[in-house]
Amino acid sequence: MTGIHRTTEKNLMVFTGRAHPELAEEVAKELGTSLVPTQAYQFANSETYVRFDESVRGCDAFVIQSHVAPVNEWIMEHLIMVDALKRGSAKRITVVLPFYGYARQDKKHRGREPISARLIADLFKTAGADRLLAVDLHTAQIQGFFDGPVDHLMATPILSQHVKDKYGHEDLVVVSPDAGRIKVAEWWSNKLDGAPLAFIHKTRDVTRPNASVANRVVGEVEGRMCILVDDMIDSGGTICQAAEALMNQGAKGVVIAATHAIFSDPAVERLRNSVAQEIVVTNTLPLSDEAKALDKITQLSIAPLISRAIHEVFEDGSVTSMFEGRA
Amino acid sequence: MTGIHRTTEKNLMVFTGRAHPELAEEVAKELGTSLVPTQAYQFANSETYVRFDESVRGCDAFVIQSHVAPVNEWIMEHLIMVDALKRGSAKRITVVLPFYGYARQDKKHRGREPISARLIADLFKTAGADRLLAVDLHTAQIQGFFDGPVDHLMATPILSQHVKDKYGHEDLVVVSPDAGRIKVAEWWSNKLDGAPLAFIHKTRDVTRPNASVANRVVGEVEGRMCILVDDMIDSGGTICQAAEALMNQGAKGVVIAATHAIFSDPAVERLRNSVAQEIVVTNTLPLSDEAKALDKITQLSIAPLISRAIHEVFEDGSVTSMFEGRA
Amino acid sequence: MTGIHRTTEKNLMVFTGRAHPELAEEVAKELGTSLVPTQAYQFANSETYVRFDESVRGCDAFVIQSHVAPVNEWIMEHLIMVDALKRGSAKRITVVLPFYGYARQDKKHRGREPISARLIADLFKTAGADRLLAVDLHTAQIQGFFDGPVDHLMATPILSQHVKDKYGHEDLVVVSPDAGRIKVAEWWSNKLDGAPLAFIHKTRDVTRPNASVANRVVGEVEGRMCILVDDMIDSGGTICQAAEALMNQGAKGVVIAATHAIFSDPAVERLRNSVAQEIVVTNTLPLSDEAKALDKITQLSIAPLISRAIHEVFEDGSVTSMFEGRA
Amino acid sequence: MTGIHRTTEKNLMVFTGRAHPELAEEVAKELGTSLVPTQAYQFANSETYVRFDESVRGCDAFVIQSHVAPVNEWIMEHLIMVDALKRGSAKRITVVLPFYGYARQDKKHRGREPISARLIADLFKTAGADRLLAVDLHTAQIQGFFDGPVDHLMATPILSQHVKDKYGHEDLVVVSPDAGRIKVAEWWSNKLDGAPLAFIHKTRDVTRPNASVANRVVGEVEGRMCILVDDMIDSGGTICQAAEALMNQGAKGVVIAATHAIFSDPAVERLRNSVAQEIVVTNTLPLSDEAKALDKITQLSIAPLISRAIHEVFEDGSVTSMFEGRA
Amino acid sequence: MTGIHRTTEKNLMVFTGRAHPELAEEVAKELGTSLVPTQAYQFANSETYVRFDESVRGCDAFVIQSHVAPVNEWIMEHLIMVDALKRGSAKRITVVLPFYGYARQDKKHRGREPISARLIADLFKTAGADRLLAVDLHTAQIQGFFDGPVDHLMATPILSQHVKDKYGHEDLVVVSPDAGRIKVAEWWSNKLDGAPLAFIHKTRDVTRPNASVANRVVGEVEGRMCILVDDMIDSGGTICQAAEALMNQGAKGVVIAATHAIFSDPAVERLRNSVAQEIVVTNTLPLSDEAKALDKITQLSIAPLISRAIHEVFEDGSVTSMFEGRA
Amino acid sequence: MTGIHRTTEKNLMVFTGRAHPELAEEVAKELGTSLVPTQAYQFANSETYVRFDESVRGCDAFVIQSHVAPVNEWIMEHLIMVDALKRGSAKRITVVLPFYGYARQDKKHRGREPISARLIADLFKTAGADRLLAVDLHTAQIQGFFDGPVDHLMATPILSQHVKDKYGHEDLVVVSPDAGRIKVAEWWSNKLDGAPLAFIHKTRDVTRPNASVANRVVGEVEGRMCILVDDMIDSGGTICQAAEALMNQGAKGVVIAATHAIFSDPAVERLRNSVAQEIVVTNTLPLSDEAKALDKITQLSIAPLISRAIHEVFEDGSVTSMFEGRA
Repeated sequence: MTGIHRTTEKNLMVFTGRAHPELAEEVAKELGTSLVPTQAYQFANSETYVRFDESVRGCDAFVIQSHVAPVNEWIMEHLIMVDALKRGSAKRITVVLPFYGYARQDKKHRGREPISARLIADLFKTAGADRLLAVDLHTAQIQGFFDGPVDHLMATPILSQHVKDKYGHEDLVVVSPDAGRIKVAEWWSNKLDGAPLAFIHKTRDVTRPNASVANRVVGEVEGRMCILVDDMIDSGGTICQAAEALMNQGAKGVVIAATHAIFSDPAVERLRNSVAQEIVVTNTLPLSDEAKALDKITQLSIAPLISRAIHEVFEDGSVTSMFEGRA
Repeated sequence: MTGIHRTTEKNLMVFTGRAHPELAEEVAKELGTSLVPTQAYQFANSETYVRFDESVRGCDAFVIQSHVAPVNEWIMEHLIMVDALKRGSAKRITVVLPFYGYARQDKKHRGREPISARLIADLFKTAGADRLLAVDLHTAQIQGFFDGPVDHLMATPILSQHVKDKYGHEDLVVVSPDAGRIKVAEWWSNKLDGAPLAFIHKTRDVTRPNASVANRVVGEVEGRMCILVDDMIDSGGTICQAAEALMNQGAKGVVIAATHAIFSDPAVERLRNSVAQEIVVTNTLPLSDEAKALDKITQLSIAPLISRAIHEVFEDGSVTSMFEGRA
Repeated sequence: MTGIHRTTEKNLMVFTGRAHPELAEEVAKELGTSLVPTQAYQFANSETYVRFDESVRGCDAFVIQSHVAPVNEWIMEHLIMVDALKRGSAKRITVVLPFYGYARQDKKHRGREPISARLIADLFKTAGADRLLAVDLHTAQIQGFFDGPVDHLMATPILSQHVKDKYGHEDLVVVSPDAGRIKVAEWWSNKLDGAPLAFIHKTRDVTRPNASVANRVVGEVEGRMCILVDDMIDSGGTICQAAEALMNQGAKGVVIAATHAIFSDPAVERLRNSVAQEIVVTNTLPLSDEAKALDKITQLSIAPLISRAIHEVFEDGSVTSMFEGRA
Repeated sequence: MTGIHRTTEKNLMVFTGRAHPELAEEVAKELGTSLVPTQAYQFANSETYVRFDESVRGCDAFVIQSHVAPVNEWIMEHLIMVDALKRGSAKRITVVLPFYGYARQDKKHRGREPISARLIADLFKTAGADRLLAVDLHTAQIQGFFDGPVDHLMATPILSQHVKDKYGHEDLVVVSPDAGRIKVAEWWSNKLDGAPLAFIHKTRDVTRPNASVANRVVGEVEGRMCILVDDMIDSGGTICQAAEALMNQGAKGVVIAATHAIFSDPAVERLRNSVAQEIVVTNTLPLSDEAKALDKITQLSIAPLISRAIHEVFEDGSVTSMFEGRA
Repeated sequence: MTGIHRTTEKNLMVFTGRAHPELAEEVAKELGTSLVPTQAYQFANSETYVRFDESVRGCDAFVIQSHVAPVNEWIMEHLIMVDALKRGSAKRITVVLPFYGYARQDKKHRGREPISARLIADLFKTAGADRLLAVDLHTAQIQGFFDGPVDHLMATPILSQHVKDKYGHEDLVVVSPDAGRIKVAEWWSNKLDGAPLAFIHKTRDVTRPNASVANRVVGEVEGRMCILVDDMIDSGGTICQAAEALMNQGAKGVVIAATHAIFSDPAVERLRNSVAQEIVVTNTLPLSDEAKALDKITQLSIAPLISRAIHEVFEDGSVTSMFEGRA
Repeated sequence: MTGIHRTTEKNLMVFTGRAHPELAEEVAKELGTSLVPTQAYQFANSETYVRFDESVRGCDAFVIQSHVAPVNEWIMEHLIMVDALKRGSAKRITVVLPFYGYARQDKKHRGREPISARLIADLFKTAGADRLLAVDLHTAQIQGFFDGPVDHLMATPILSQHVKDKYGHEDLVVVSPDAGRIKVAEWWSNKLDGAPLAFIHKTRDVTRPNASVANRVVGEVEGRMCILVDDMIDSGGTICQAAEALMNQGAKGVVIAATHAIFSDPAVERLRNSVAQEIVVTNTLPLSDEAKALDKITQLSIAPLISRAIHEVFEDGSVTSMFEGRA
C-alpha cells in the first residue's frame, strides 16, 4: 500500500497557568517530568498573552489551573492556553481543574439567572478541551455539563483519613453546616464507622420574633466531637456559625474539614476566632500567608491524587479504581 | 424595497403522545384550544409511527409527553414527534415534560456509567427541541443539561397548600426520607411556618450486627404529625420504611407528599399497607386503576400550572413570576 | 523536549446489549476475544441502567445491538451504552447494527411525517458514536444519514451462495415482491448467471371492480423455480401473497430469501402455510422458538462477516475488498 | 416593562443566481414581485463575487438556483449567495433547488467514494440555509440528508396530466428504463388508470455470448403505446436504447417523460434520432437552443408549482396539500 | 386550523454590564428607552453574578459592554449576561462591542500562540450571541471570526469631520504611525480632499550602530500639519514617538486621531508631554479623570452612531447606508 | 483486561486533485513516497466524481490542491475528496492549500457581501478537514477563520533569498504597490539589511482635475533598484502601473517578487511589456506555457517547503522552527 509507515508514539506534557503554579509543579514532579516552559503575562491594557516555548504538536496535554480569585482572570487565561494548544496541534487536551470556578452557579435559583457552571463547561469545550479532570465538584451533576469525558476525583478520602487517624478514638458525630450538604456528611459517616449525623437547620426563630434566622441543630451532638464537613470554605461565615451552634448545644469540640480552601476575606479572621479547634483542607487552592500562619489550619496535598489520575488517563488505566468505584 | 410584506402572526399548537393524553387534554382545554389531531401507532415490528393531521408550518409547538413506563417507548415517540415537527417547519418547538425520564441518572455514581439525564437533554436537542418546560426536576442542575432555555415549574406549592389547609392546625415536622432530599424538606418547612426538620439516616445498625441497615431518625418527631416529602414515589420501599420508622419513634401520624407518582410495582400494595394516613400526589403521571381505588391517595391536578406556563411562554410573559421568583 | 514518551497501543473491545447477545458472542468468539462483562437491567419504573465491569479507557469499542422488537427499548439501551463509553473515555466507538431500526422510515411519504431513519443516525452521533457498521440497509442512502464513516456489509452473498448451491441446476427466475426492490433482484440475477427478472405489480384489478388490489406478475415465471428476494420479512403478508401469485402463474416452486428475519406476528404462521418451499434468512435478528421449529426456515450465520469487518476496521484494513468493491 | 414595542412584519424576497434566471423571473412574477437586484460576476481569476443591491435585513429569503452545467460554478455561487444573506442578517433562508446537483451520488456504490448528495446538503447548511425546497429529487431519501425542513415538490403530476390529455385514449403501458426507477413508474401507473407496468432489464445476453449487455423487456408492451418515465434525462443513452428495445418488442409507439432535462451532450442528437415520438420535460433546467429547435420536445413550466410553494411557505400554509398528501 | 392565533410583537431591550455604563445609558436615551435594571456584582471569591430584574422573554436584546481593563472581568461578565438572556428566552441576542477585547490578537505571529480574537468570537457564540455589532475593529477580518451577522460601524467619520472642521484650512498630511495602518490613513486622505500620505518606518538605524531602532519618516511632512491616525491608543509609546519624529522632520504641528482611547499607563503622562497639540478620540472607552483633566484631549461621542445602528437592526433597516456602503 | 491489543501504526498518504498535480508529485517525491492512485473525472453533466484506488482507512491524509482557475471546479473537487476520505475512515485529514481560493474576500468591504474566505474554511471543516496547511495567506487573519489547527508556511524567504543573492550588491528600496501591503514590504526590508521602504499611493491627482487616479510614490526611489513585492499577481495591472510610476520617479530598475502567480489574462502580456526587468514567483500555481516562455519570469519551487512541513506534521515535529518562529 502507498504511504509512509511509522509506529505511533504519545507524549504527556503538563502545563500550568499563573493561578497556582506550586500545585502544578508538585504534580509534574510526582509524574517524573517538569512543566512545559510557558510565557504568560498581561499586556498594558490587561489582555492576557500566552505562548509555549516548546512544540506541542501531537502531545497529550494536561493544562492545570485552579480558579482562585481573581477567578475571571484565571479562567480566561485557562481558555487562552487551551486555544493555543488546539491551534498548536496538541492531540488531546485535558483541562485539569483542582477547583472548578462558578461551580456553585449550577442551576437557576430564580428566573433570568445564568447557569454559569454550564457556561464554563461549554467555554472550555469551545476553546478546544477534549476532557475535564476535576476534584470534588460542588455537585456531581456538573459532570453532565461537559460534552465529553469527565474524571471526577475525590479528595475527601485524604481528609477523612486524617480525621480518622487523629480523632478516631473519640465519640464522633458528623455534621453538615446546612441542609444541602448532608449527602457529603453521610459519606463521611460511612468512612468513620457509622458515626451518627446531624445538620444545622437555618430557620426563623419563633422564640425571638425580631431576630431573622436561628441555627437549629438537628441531631444529637451533646458531649461529642463534631466533624463539620463541607466541600469548600468561602468567607467562612456559615461554617463558623455552625461551629458555634454546635458548641452551644454542648458539643465537646468541633473539627472542620473541607476540600477547597477559598478563604475569601474575612475567612481567616473568622477561623482564627472560631470555636473550631482544627480546620483541615487540601491544596487545591493556594493558601495566603495569613492562612499559612494560622496554626490550627492543616493543609494536605492532593498532588499525589492528581498525578496518579493523569498517569492513569495517559496510560489508559482506570481512574475509577483509584477511589473504590465512585465516579 | 423589493418584496412582499405581511404582518407576522403566531399560532400556538398543543400536541401529545400516547403516554398520558388525559393531562394534555386538560392542559389544552385550560388554554382554550384542543389537541392537534395526530396519528401515532406501532408497526408490526414495534417501530413507532407518527403523523400530524394538520399543517404545523410556522406554529409555536408545545409537545406534551410524560415519561411513564414503558419509559423508552414514550421517549422515542416524543423524539419522533419533535423530528416530525422540525421537518414540518414548526417555528419553535417546546418539549413539555411533566415527568422527565431518567432524571435520577444525573451523574456518575461509579465509573463507566452513563449520565442518562444529560443524554436525554441532548437527544431532544438533536431531534429539534428549542426549549424545555419541565415540572419538579429531580435535581435543579438538570436545567443546565439542556443547551437552551428551560422553564422549571414547581408543583410543590400545590402540594404544600393542600397539606397546610388540611393539617396546618397540627404540630408538624417535615421529614426527608433520606439525606439527599433535605433541601426540599427545608423548602416545605418555610411554607409550613417554619416547622422543624428531621430526616432518616440509613446506616448499619451497630446494636444489631447481623441486620444490614437501620433507619435512624435524626431530629425530633415524637408526638408530631410528620409530613414526609419527596419529589417522586417509585416502588415506595424507602418512603414506607421511613413512615414506619417515624411511627416507631412515636410520631402522631404520617402524611406523604410527592409530585411524581411513578408507583412502580409494588408501590400501591406498599402504600395500602403503610402506616401513612394520606399520600398526596399530582397528575404529572397517570394513576393506575388500582391506585385510583386506594382512598388514602389524593391526586391534585397540575394542568392549570402547565397551561398557565405555556400561555406565558407563548405571550412572552414571565413564568418566574408564577412561583415567586424561583426558577 | 519536555514530557513523557510512550509507544501507543490500541485495544479492541466488543460489547453487546440485551437484544440479541447470541450473535455478539459468536462475533467475539470469531475474533478470538470475549464480550466485555456488562451490567444492563431495567429499574422498577422501566428505565434502563448500564455499567461496564472493566475499564474502557482508550479502547476501540464495537457495540453490537440488533434492533429487534421491542425496538425502542433496544435503541435506547444502545444509546445509553454509547454514552457510557463516551464518558468512560473510549477512544473510538463503532456502533454495530446487524439490523438498523426504523430503516424503512427513510423519507417522508406524506407531509408532517418524521424521517426516523435519519433521526436514529443523529441520535447515535449525539450519544457519541464515531462510526457505524451496518448490514444490508433497507436503502443504501441511509449511509448518507450518518455524519461519519459507515461500513455497509452485504449479507446477500451468503444467501445467494446457498441458493446457487441448492437450486443452481434449476431453471431460475428472480422475483421482487414489489416495485421498490427490483434493484436487489437485479443484483441476485447477476449472481445467478443472469437469471431473468420478474416483479409483482400491486394494482387495482379492473376485471374485478369490487376487489381492491390485485397482484399482477410482470415477467415470465411459468415452469420456473422462483427466487423471491427481499431485504427483510416483517409480518410476511406481502411476500406470502407474492409467492401465491407466482404459483398461480404456473411457477414450478418458490424459494424466499431475505437477510433480516423480523418475523412479526403472524409471520411464522403465514410462512408455515405458504406455498414457499424454503425460506432462507440470516441471524441478524434472533429467531423465536416457533420459527426455529419450522423446518423450511434455513438460518445462515453472518457472524463471520461481521467479525471479519470488525477485524479489518481495527487493523485499518479494507472492508470494501471483502465484498468485491461494493460499499 | 422596559423596552420599545413594535408589531413584527415579514418580507418575502426572491433571489436568483446566474444559472437559470428565466425560471426565477417567472417564479417572482407569479408571486407578484420581482427579483432582488443582485451583482454577480467572476473576477479575472474566476472567483465568484456576489452582492445584493438592497438591504436584506430581516427578510424571508428564497434563493433560486438550478444546478445545470457547469454544476460546480453554480453550486459555489449558490453557497456564496447564502453566505451573503446570512451575513446580511436575512431572517430565514430557503434554498430553492429546481434541480439538485449531485443528487445521483446519494450512496457509496463502492468503497472510498464520496456521498456528494449529502455533502451538498451539509455545505448549504454550513453556508447558512435554514430550509430546502426541491423538485423531484432523484431519491426521496435525500430529504433526510438535510438537517432541517425540506419541502419536496412533485413535478410529475404536470407531466402525467399532459400525457393523459394527449394519450389517455390509447392502450398504455408505463415503462421504467431500468430496475431502479420502477417505483416512479408505479406512481405513473396509478395516475394513468392502472396502466400495466414494464421495465428494461439490462443483462448479459446468453443467446449472444460475445455481446456484453442486452436490454430485455420485462412485461407486455406489444401493440401498446409506451410511456417511458424517468426523473431526469442526462446524455440520453439509456432512455433511447430503452425506447428502441420497446419498439423491437412490438410497441406501437414510445413517449418519454422526465422532469429534469439535463441534456448533456449528445442527448439532443440522440433524442432527434430516437424512435420516441415525443419527449415531455419541464423547465427545471434551461433548454439549449438546439433542444428548443427540436419539435418533438415539449417543455412544461414548473414556475406555478414553485411560486405556489413559496407562497405557502411564506404564509405558513400547507405545501403537502398541494400534491395530495405526498411529501 | 387548530390553535391560538396572535399578531407577533417584538420588543427592543438594552442591557449594559459594569465596564462603561455611561455610554450604554446615552445609547438607551438616544433610542428613547432606558436600560433594563440589572443586578451585577462579584461574590466574595470574585465570581461574577448577574440577574435581570424584568422578564426578558421574547425580547430583541442588545447587550452593550466595552472591553476596558480589567478586560477579562468584563468579557466574562458579558458572556454571563448573554447566557442569562439565552436561558431567560430572549428571542435574539446582539452583543454590542464599542471596543472588542483581544482584537489585536487576530493571528498567530509566531507558533504556539492563541488566536484570541477568534476565541472571543467563539465564546460569545457559545454563550448564545446571535449577532455582533462592533465599532472600528482592529482588522476588518475579525468580522469573519464570528459565525453569524456582524454589523461593523465606523467611528472614523466622526473623527475626520472634527479634524476637517478645525484644520481643513491647513496644509495637511495624513500619517500612519507604522506600516500596518496605512490603509486607515488612506481612508483619511480621501476624506481630507486627497491629502498626501506618510508613515513611520521603524528600522535599525545604520548611522547609529548601537541604537536599536530608528523612526524613519517615509513621505513629505515638512511644513505641514500632520494628522497622525490610528484605530487605538494603548500606552501611547508608538504614537508619541511618531509625533516626535514628525516634528524632527520639520512638521508644522501634529494632531493625533484615534477611535479607541485605551490609555493604559502611562499613556496620559506621555500624551501630556507629547509634542502633539490635540488628541481626538471617541467615548468607546471611558476616560479616566486624569485623561479628562488633560485639555488637549477631545472626546467625541459615538452614542448617536450606536443607537442609530441598533434602531436600524431592530427595524430591519440598512446599517450599511449609514456609512456610505462600507461594511 | 478483555480485548485484543496491538501497537498502533500510522501511515502518511498524499493525495492530489487535478488542478496542479505537478506540484503534488514533486512534494510526494521529496517525501519519499508517491501519490495515492485516484480516479477523478467529470460526468457528462459536469458533476465531479472521485474515488481512491487504495484503502485509506486509518491513514494520515494530506490532500493537496491549488485553487487555480477555474477556482470553483477545483474547490468542489477538493471538498469531494475530503468527503470521500472521511467516509473512507481516514484518521486525520490535512487540507494542503498552496494557494487558498477566495483569500482576498476576507471581509465585507461593503454591506451585503459574503465573506467567502471564511465560507471556504467552513466548507472544508464541514466536508471533514481536521487541519489546514497553507502558503502565504493573503492576510494572516485567515488562520483564524478555520476552527482547528492551521500551519501557515512562508514562501517569502525563498523569494527574498533569490533577490538578495542576485541584487544584494545594489542600492535597494522595497516598494509596496499599495497601502495595504506595506507590512509585507517591511518584512522584506528586514531581510534585505534594512533597505528603505516606499509605497504607491493611489489618489485623485489634484494637478490634473479630469484624470481620475494618480499613482503617487511615497518614499525615496531615485537611483535605486526597486524590489516591488506583493503576495500575488492576478491580472497584473496594479503592479505594472506601480513599476512604471517607479521608473517615472527615476528608479534605476524594478524587480517584482510575489509568491502566487495567478496570472489571469492579460497578466503575461502586461508583464512582457512592463518596465520590470525580472518577475520572481513560486510554483504554488502552475504557469501557462505562455508564462513559461517569458524569460524574465523566474519560478522557484516551494515543494521542498511543503514536503518538509508535511513531514514535521506527520512526525509531530515543529513547523514553526522551519521559519524562525513566525506562524
